[in-house]
Amino acid sequence: MSKKIVTFGEIMLRLSVPCYKRFPQANSFNVSFGGSEANVAVSLANFGLHSEFLTCLPPNLIGKACLNELHRYGVHTPHVVTKPGRMGLYYMEEAVAMRSSQVVYDRAGTSFDSVAPGDIDWEEVLAPVGWFHFSGITPAVASTAADACLEAVTTARRLGLTVSCDINFRRNLWTYGKQPIEVMPELLAHCDVVFGTELEYKKALGIDMPGFKAVDTDYRMDLDGYARAAEDVNRLVPQCTTIVFALRNTLGANHHLLGGTLWRDGCLHVAKIYNIDDVKDCVGCGDAYVAGIIYGMTNGRDAKESLALGAAACALKNTFLGDFSQTTAEELENCI
Amino acid sequence: MSKKIVTFGEIMLRLSVPCYKRFPQANSFNVSFGGSEANVAVSLANFGLHSEFLTCLPPNLIGKACLNELHRYGVHTPHVVTKPGRMGLYYMEEAVAMRSSQVVYDRAGTSFDSVAPGDIDWEEVLAPVGWFHFSGITPAVASTAADACLEAVTTARRLGLTVSCDINFRRNLWTYGKQPIEVMPELLAHCDVVFGTELEYKKALGIDMPGFKAVDTDYRMDLDGYARAAEDVNRLVPQCTTIVFALRNTLGANHHLLGGTLWRDGCLHVAKIYNIDDVKDCVGCGDAYVAGIIYGMTNGRDAKESLALGAAACALKNTFLGDFSQTTAEELENCI
Amino acid sequence: MSKKIVTFGEIMLRLSVPCYKRFPQANSFNVSFGGSEANVAVSLANFGLHSEFLTCLPPNLIGKACLNELHRYGVHTPHVVTKPGRMGLYYMEEAVAMRSSQVVYDRAGTSFDSVAPGDIDWEEVLAPVGWFHFSGITPAVASTAADACLEAVTTARRLGLTVSCDINFRRNLWTYGKQPIEVMPELLAHCDVVFGTELEYKKALGIDMPGFKAVDTDYRMDLDGYARAAEDVNRLVPQCTTIVFALRNTLGANHHLLGGTLWRDGCLHVAKIYNIDDVKDCVGCGDAYVAGIIYGMTNGRDAKESLALGAAACALKNTFLGDFSQTTAEELENCI
Amino acid sequence: MSKKIVTFGEIMLRLSVPCYKRFPQANSFNVSFGGSEANVAVSLANFGLHSEFLTCLPPNLIGKACLNELHRYGVHTPHVVTKPGRMGLYYMEEAVAMRSSQVVYDRAGTSFDSVAPGDIDWEEVLAPVGWFHFSGITPAVASTAADACLEAVTTARRLGLTVSCDINFRRNLWTYGKQPIEVMPELLAHCDVVFGTELEYKKALGIDMPGFKAVDTDYRMDLDGYARAAEDVNRLVPQCTTIVFALRNTLGANHHLLGGTLWRDGCLHVAKIYNIDDVKDCVGCGDAYVAGIIYGMTNGRDAKESLALGAAACALKNTFLGDFSQTTAEELENCI
Amino acid sequence: MSKKIVTFGEIMLRLSVPCYKRFPQANSFNVSFGGSEANVAVSLANFGLHSEFLTCLPPNLIGKACLNELHRYGVHTPHVVTKPGRMGLYYMEEAVAMRSSQVVYDRAGTSFDSVAPGDIDWEEVLAPVGWFHFSGITPAVASTAADACLEAVTTARRLGLTVSCDINFRRNLWTYGKQPIEVMPELLAHCDVVFGTELEYKKALGIDMPGFKAVDTDYRMDLDGYARAAEDVNRLVPQCTTIVFALRNTLGANHHLLGGTLWRDGCLHVAKIYNIDDVKDCVGCGDAYVAGIIYGMTNGRDAKESLALGAAACALKNTFLGDFSQTTAEELENCI
Amino acid sequence: MSKKIVTFGEIMLRLSVPCYKRFPQANSFNVSFGGSEANVAVSLANFGLHSEFLTCLPPNLIGKACLNELHRYGVHTPHVVTKPGRMGLYYMEEAVAMRSSQVVYDRAGTSFDSVAPGDIDWEEVLAPVGWFHFSGITPAVASTAADACLEAVTTARRLGLTVSCDINFRRNLWTYGKQPIEVMPELLAHCDVVFGTELEYKKALGIDMPGFKAVDTDYRMDLDGYARAAEDVNRLVPQCTTIVFALRNTLGANHHLLGGTLWRDGCLHVAKIYNIDDVKDCVGCGDAYVAGIIYGMTNGRDAKESLALGAAACALKNTFLGDFSQTTAEELENCI
Repeated sequence: MSKKIVTFGEIMLRLSVPCYKRFPQANSFNVSFGGSEANVAVSLANFGLHSEFLTCLPPNLIGKACLNELHRYGVHTPHVVTKPGRMGLYYMEEAVAMRSSQVVYDRAGTSFDSVAPGDIDWEEVLAPVGWFHFSGITPAVASTAADACLEAVTTARRLGLTVSCDINFRRNLWTYGKQPIEVMPELLAHCDVVFGTELEYKKALGIDMPGFKAVDTDYRMDLDGYARAAEDVNRLVPQCTTIVFALRNTLGANHHLLGGTLWRDGCLHVAKIYNIDDVKDCVGCGDAYVAGIIYGMTNGRDAKESLALGAAACALKNTFLGDFSQTTAEELENCI
Repeated sequence: MSKKIVTFGEIMLRLSVPCYKRFPQANSFNVSFGGSEANVAVSLANFGLHSEFLTCLPPNLIGKACLNELHRYGVHTPHVVTKPGRMGLYYMEEAVAMRSSQVVYDRAGTSFDSVAPGDIDWEEVLAPVGWFHFSGITPAVASTAADACLEAVTTARRLGLTVSCDINFRRNLWTYGKQPIEVMPELLAHCDVVFGTELEYKKALGIDMPGFKAVDTDYRMDLDGYARAAEDVNRLVPQCTTIVFALRNTLGANHHLLGGTLWRDGCLHVAKIYNIDDVKDCVGCGDAYVAGIIYGMTNGRDAKESLALGAAACALKNTFLGDFSQTTAEELENCI
Repeated sequence: MSKKIVTFGEIMLRLSVPCYKRFPQANSFNVSFGGSEANVAVSLANFGLHSEFLTCLPPNLIGKACLNELHRYGVHTPHVVTKPGRMGLYYMEEAVAMRSSQVVYDRAGTSFDSVAPGDIDWEEVLAPVGWFHFSGITPAVASTAADACLEAVTTARRLGLTVSCDINFRRNLWTYGKQPIEVMPELLAHCDVVFGTELEYKKALGIDMPGFKAVDTDYRMDLDGYARAAEDVNRLVPQCTTIVFALRNTLGANHHLLGGTLWRDGCLHVAKIYNIDDVKDCVGCGDAYVAGIIYGMTNGRDAKESLALGAAACALKNTFLGDFSQTTAEELENCI
Repeated sequence: MSKKIVTFGEIMLRLSVPCYKRFPQANSFNVSFGGSEANVAVSLANFGLHSEFLTCLPPNLIGKACLNELHRYGVHTPHVVTKPGRMGLYYMEEAVAMRSSQVVYDRAGTSFDSVAPGDIDWEEVLAPVGWFHFSGITPAVASTAADACLEAVTTARRLGLTVSCDINFRRNLWTYGKQPIEVMPELLAHCDVVFGTELEYKKALGIDMPGFKAVDTDYRMDLDGYARAAEDVNRLVPQCTTIVFALRNTLGANHHLLGGTLWRDGCLHVAKIYNIDDVKDCVGCGDAYVAGIIYGMTNGRDAKESLALGAAACALKNTFLGDFSQTTAEELENCI
Repeated sequence: MSKKIVTFGEIMLRLSVPCYKRFPQANSFNVSFGGSEANVAVSLANFGLHSEFLTCLPPNLIGKACLNELHRYGVHTPHVVTKPGRMGLYYMEEAVAMRSSQVVYDRAGTSFDSVAPGDIDWEEVLAPVGWFHFSGITPAVASTAADACLEAVTTARRLGLTVSCDINFRRNLWTYGKQPIEVMPELLAHCDVVFGTELEYKKALGIDMPGFKAVDTDYRMDLDGYARAAEDVNRLVPQCTTIVFALRNTLGANHHLLGGTLWRDGCLHVAKIYNIDDVKDCVGCGDAYVAGIIYGMTNGRDAKESLALGAAACALKNTFLGDFSQTTAEELENCI
Repeated sequence: MSKKIVTFGEIMLRLSVPCYKRFPQANSFNVSFGGSEANVAVSLANFGLHSEFLTCLPPNLIGKACLNELHRYGVHTPHVVTKPGRMGLYYMEEAVAMRSSQVVYDRAGTSFDSVAPGDIDWEEVLAPVGWFHFSGITPAVASTAADACLEAVTTARRLGLTVSCDINFRRNLWTYGKQPIEVMPELLAHCDVVFGTELEYKKALGIDMPGFKAVDTDYRMDLDGYARAAEDVNRLVPQCTTIVFALRNTLGANHHLLGGTLWRDGCLHVAKIYNIDDVKDCVGCGDAYVAGIIYGMTNGRDAKESLALGAAACALKNTFLGDFSQTTAEELENCI
């Protein structure tokens, strides 16, 4: 069996209005949980990998419910810590036809925001592990959380793990006084694999991509631009040898084109573009992309196949309601 | 703030079969309320305008439930009258793919049918108001209701309000012995703004539009035809200076093209055509169109922008279940 | 097999608010059908008898849905007639704890109201039948409907059927200018079996029961009073040889005592009192009582057992939502 | 009225996961019933024909529930037999976008599997009947069931009925040691009408269709191939004078092209191709196709119209959840 | 019509697990809103009074949804203020049989917590008003909120309003360093009417009630104790001339005894005890009690009748799910 | 932490009709899983113990869904085996008021039925374990399953585990030719703890209890009878030093008295009787009783406290829908 994979990050309660209703029309909410790294962890468990998720939860029944949901899909949570505070949550109205989705975040004062160096015994957590994954959301929420991240990645590197980061830039989270460019480069310097969009690479590493357009009006990708950008990333953080770009082109609320590229050893691999015109729920499809690629890489697949698995995972995620992808490894393999 | 807008007409209970079921399969109905003028009133309230709805309801708990629903969305109902009778209702099966919607009307003997001149103190209702709107449904249901309409529009005109009418021709309602052409011209003669389709203008005013086809097989609109028709309308009811045409082209049960024209001062404005291939519920999208244009006109927008707002409101309506549009002014503005 | 039983009367659509909500809180209604005679017909079919229901429905999809629901439980409807008009309906809020149920009737202008002599070929309907049952609701709704009833019972008598009537007095239905005392005696004169409460016998036949109280404060029944009343009924309509009283004592919205008496050949039989403190839906429990007794009588059970079957059927009805009892003959037999 | 039509086959309980969920996410199942011949029977009843369904059920409450559901739609079941065993069932996850549907069959040890010659008095069942229909599923489940089928078709033929068979090849059902080619020819030799796809004709009759492709990449049908194949069938089972091919081209989980051909008297008729891009539930659309054609043929329509009715019925089925089509004859006629 | 009544306090989102489930089993929450003063406001509006609710909400869509829900029941909200922060919420598991309800509060950082003197123009709000009501929850949440309360009651007093306070002691809210005894007396000194339980009067005013037991083991109330306590309250806050005690005796999760006393002019009035053994939702029944008494007092009913109305309102609340009572004035009057 | 506890037995899918409906009225089933030993395992996990469940499942998606549900509540399943066959299931109608529940079992041909010696490596499973629990259902289903049980208990005994058995006599399961008295004594001879009712002890061990009545008409337990019976059991299987009796007295479908006794070292301990008059779902309350006692014994509680914990767990189970108890250790402790 492949070695254990640990993902670390925040997980939130998600309250969605059913049946295309608006908030004022709701008399019930669909309840689920989600968060970038948790979504990756669930995908990996559904693929049959040994997946552990690490987070910080409030010591109440909602935190306990969150753990139960993770266990349901086979995610292990032996090292989750509890700290005073609340469970972050977000309210969501679905997108439909030409109407956009509406999201109201409610994550001030969460337990996760108070995670700090020393709260987690990284040595113990990471010793038996083969891969460590986190996203740029954790260093965004608080200065101490960023420090905890650094503690994690340096420990992971020392112990010889593969380290990956999904930049996941969220403008409204960076409120403690620093910009991504001040924090992310040091973290990415310890990573082997990095995931992002062109905007995210720019925010996190200051990459400049003059004239770059992900796709032109005929939906042809700017492959030269992608290759140049990946090389720029590799120059800035040379430890990063696998550099992944995600592509989502939104033609309508429920009609997306999905694809991406993966650069390694000077070579740019390009995924097949999936045209999904019946998107049920696109939240978490970037996380499914990450999970598909990690699945490929931990199973010894080459760069091209790993990317193909990621793209398929990303596309399949759109068929599930909730943040969590329920795709199996078998379905993934059937797609490629 | 803009002045108060009063709409006057019938409101009915709507009982819809959920999940694409047929009537014999239903063990529950979705419950909502709707009616052409009520739909306009709710849209206007959701846009933030001071919207009052005037109708006649039975003095029972279902009538009260109807008022509660209107209040929920901020519609004022201080002058609603109650009369013996019942609440009109209609049963509905959703359209899906190549299957048409099925509607069973059940509106004989409603309280609204007995509305007559003298039932409403129009002087009191309309004095503090800037705009009065009604549709051709009211004069269709009964001779006395037509007289009440005339009482309303003459009072409104005397008090200096803007008056608008949506012709809304419904063949099966005109059962008391008169045809629209015998009733509508006198009412329209008091209007400043009129809404309709080519068929409705023909029925209400006898307009003849030889050779007119709303769109040709390439979906190009017959702009000359629209302009000539508007001028004909203007000649017959010269008080009407804003003449609006609505266009709905049904490509499939859930696939509609929506657009329209607005004529003013000899100039025909044309709305962008919206192609909605995931229609959730098209009932009331004509009323949303009306509401969008009234919103524009009461906020001092020019003819072109008012029409654009109407078309956007119409298109967005298709994303909501139920007659009532839940679109906000902000969403409307974002579309144009 | 026992001979066919025909019941004749109105059936209405029932729209119930779920989950103890009030009308203004409802966004869905539970949908079912019900009516005194239809409820009897469904019970009989669920007991395994050959049960036919006869009514008049509107020629629309709601009438068709009603027939489908009757067929589902094995009720035959070969002679149902359709006439213009609407489907009668009623809206209902459940009773809960100290809060009463709320009912809003909406049955003006129904197809059934227009039933008149000649609409139904009673000769054809009743020829192959053993038992004919109707209730006092039909002669209440219209003078012509009362005449149709008389046509039915005289035909039934001539053909040698057993005829039964449940008086079912509903004050608000007798609006066409006559009182029950002017109409019911002639109808009851053709019956073999009659069902009612003390109030109903008083309204229908003018029985005077001075000093009678169904139960005293210790829940002991006034058996002498019941016997005297039955004898009075038998004197007035001597053809009626089986005279049934129903007893419902409401201790709370969901706590009822149920029982009754059956008089035949000068002998009063008394049912066991059922104490139901978890009533789910009491609508139609009187109809289940009627059905249980008819089941007993058509299966050759004696007076005492037939009454016991009726009381058990009545009590069991309270465990089903909707007007229709779903009790099987086997459950009934297990109770006695 | 047209003569009675009897269909004979297995009916199963269907448990579907709602809302695009997977099995592990389900906390409720939608419940319905279905089976190839039962689906045909329900369609025919919904078209207003006198439809009888014959099957073998377990003597328990689930079998009774199944009968109730059939009665609901007007299907008659006077000759259904009960035998020890269980009700077959299948679990189903819906297809959505690029995700396939998942089906778990659970039909070992069903009552139907034990149907054997002598269990049904075919003489009595078929005497008053005009048409007998079955499918290739029955001879697949057990050797004794195949024998019962043969008993049925020979009786039907002797009594002069029209006999039809839908080949309905299901590889995983033929487990008792024989192949379709060993069983089906003898059964088909007694049929007047046969339905199938090219693969099914090959499996059942050994037809060889070298180079045949139902549609080319431009969606043009191989009409010569269809004609040749039909003639081959006719040569092998000359009693079969109406030979129907069904065509389903799956462009996506919810996007199907549907059509077919009907050969009679040396002439190949071709149905209009329906392009359904919002398939709600495609299970049973082949059975609806069969039912549409039987409807046409029993109403004296010619070959071309019968085929058109079948294709419309097939397309409309995709708009209903569950195996049973709820299309009415009126809707069918409106389509052609 | 009676004069306007203003209530002021926090309102929260309530997320309840349906069907007796626990949090980890929930895949949906029932959504409603509630808060002590909002509950009073909704009850008053449902009684037909002119009811205004004043609070502080976050400027987001959840705050807007809250206003819509209040409008639905006719509560006016013209002076609601918005401030940065979040909407407070609480998660709830229902009590059932011997299992207690579970509540998880999540109200740190709410907009309401930041209410401070000067945020509300009390002069403008209260000028046209006849009655001002608040509870001890507001002064509990923050020192500034307590100051805002004092600002409100002194303005109300100056303007000649009737002022009432429900002490509503919640131990876990008083976290800013003060105890109720340090804050409440000054606020209560401005009140005309005060509501509480014996424990609450002790916490708020330091009343000592040696030997007092609300009810003895035979459910007889300690009337002397209640009278003495009321006189003690009146001595400490002599402005308070109506002193109300609420009594809830919990015999089981869904079985409560409800009653209370009202002291005025040296006379103790005692309410009938309601025995509710089918409690559907007891949250807010104390607020219904308050509303019933205010309804009585503002309609000129005497002390005894006002108390009786309060007790009936309290008992009826237990039949509604959610915090809001849906009782009408008519139902209330029928109870007394 | 206490040592791991392994339970071994069958788990089935449970399909329940919601809302008091009957099978023919159902259009959805509530879905859950349950089985005597699985229920014990879930209870133990919810109490915070290390609980492993061992069973045999079919290798399909329904088996996988079952595992996911067990994981959700923290039950470990590392040694579950898969064998060909099906998932056993049962259909259930709820009991309500005087109507009994209806259960239709469908468990022929399950994978579990084929469990045989050698299928499970008991040495590996039980080596790290402290307690092994099974019930009399496993030896009932098949001769090979009984042999597997014997293999398990002899291994467990050799390894020094505590072994417990819940006799759980189900008459309709013992169909392979043997009676409990031929099989159970040998199994019980290896047990330390045994659970049962008086009937079960009689069936399994041939205990004769002349004149024994669990409770008399005043609900007083026959303590002498219980003590004598326990001593008889102990004489027959002297290894069994803890002998537990369960008591359920059904006063109505939703009104049960629950209690029990525990005998150890010649001393009979008696549990408080719980009177539950609002039973939501009593399935699995005997399993909760077992789990509560195991929880007490593995946490070093004495006989009296362990019994009290069992009785509380049993009573609390009745508040949860589904077989699985969701009670926490904290709630249990609060009850005693």
